[in-house]
Amino acid sequence: MLGSPSIPPSARPVRSAQKGQHTKAVVVDAALNLATQVGLEGLSIGAVAELAQMSKSGVFAHLGSREELQISVVYEYHHRFEQEVFYPALKQPRGLPRLRAMITNWMKRTTVEIDSGCIFISGATEFADRPGPVRDALVKSVNLWHAAVHTAIAQAKQEGHLRADVCERQIAFDLHGMILALHYEARFLRIPGSIERARASFENIIARSAAPGTLTAPAARSRKRATPKTTV
Amino acid sequence: MLGSPSIPPSARPVRSAQKGQHTKAVVVDAALNLATQVGLEGLSIGAVAELAQMSKSGVFAHLGSREELQISVVYEYHHRFEQEVFYPALKQPRGLPRLRAMITNWMKRTTVEIDSGCIFISGATEFADRPGPVRDALVKSVNLWHAAVHTAIAQAKQEGHLRADVCERQIAFDLHGMILALHYEARFLRIPGSIERARASFENIIARSAAPGTLTAPAARSRKRATPKTTV
Repeated sequence: MLGSPSIPPSARPVRSAQKGQHTKAVVVDAALNLATQVGLEGLSIGAVAELAQMSKSGVFAHLGSREELQISVVYEYHHRFEQEVFYPALKQPRGLPRLRAMITNWMKRTTVEIDSGCIFISGATEFADRPGPVRDALVKSVNLWHAAVHTAIAQAKQEGHLRADVCERQIAFDLHGMILALHYEARFLRIPGSIERARASFENIIARSAAPGTLTAPAARSRKRATPKTTV
Repeated sequence: MLGSPSIPPSARPVRSAQKGQHTKAVVVDAALNLATQVGLEGLSIGAVAELAQMSKSGVFAHLGSREELQISVVYEYHHRFEQEVFYPALKQPRGLPRLRAMITNWMKRTTVEIDSGCIFISGATEFADRPGPVRDALVKSVNLWHAAVHTAIAQAKQEGHLRADVCERQIAFDLHGMILALHYEARFLRIPGSIERARASFENIIARSAAPGTLTAPAARSRKRATPKTTV
């Protein structure tokens, strides 16, 4: 189709660039689907070409190398994470409502990934000791998200929703642990009730850090649920 | 040396079996060292043979197959974990002192593994979707440890150190999250102060669940430290 006589010559480079972008997006999408299952290190140009129904040379032409493919997958994962977890939460008011929305979205995404996998988690074990641009891209991506969580916690302090003496990094560490335990216990150990336990963890972390009078009736109900007997 | 004329014939089978056991232990030790760096799936008979300074056929003779080697590595890891983390804690009195010792030893082991890796964590991502005997051995091993943690928490309730209404599974989930966050943030993200944050998390979990009057002066001091400002 590209360069067909029906397309005016002036439009050709634009169409060509668009098609190139589209093809690259198809390849990266196939690679991301594969990487969530087998890890970034499990990616091969051959397997991705097969999934994207392209030739190996076609994949090389659009991505350059396996390493560039891995980095593109990290960026694409980051982009989707932002779209699903971060941006929708920005519609909530600054402070505890926004922090609550961010963490709730993060938990939702983690529960979706129980059946697939998370390259922020598998990548952390694959690239713990492997310096280079893939590790750098992963660390940068995870750190950007953690910085957004710190900011949301700091804003919740500024708004008077969390106590002034709580440590942003400590709360962020505890929230990260809650997500990692949810992923591990639900995905690997397949323990029923892991999602309810993650929610209870979240409520406990917030309850410990909340300014007096912040937790209104619905939150107080959540506090009561924070050690669910039914999920044992 | 084996079967040398200086050894009485009756002693030969015993010596031979002992030597076999010793050689197997050398191979499994080399394989475990390698697996902590590259994961269980990164193990190859060739690489292990080189590390153990043996022939490939020698490794096959003692371990049978790559899968059997992987399973032996899981059992050996489990054995060392028990020796370092579980058994020393049994010397402490039942209840909170024993639970505290178990979790402190677990954190110590996790900090040692910041420079190497943990096959309970890397294995969970490698074998999340791979059914088979290696996954089964890993799940069994992790579940045995988690059951020991549940028991210690239940005993702390029985001894009146933790409140009767707290949920063992919830506390175990939170403790697991604390360990996973420590490993991720110290090993992959290399964030300074991760160990102090893990300790503060632990004290917060215990403080939330402690029966009134359980936390004596030293524990109360720990509680004060639970949101360290200096580690930000």
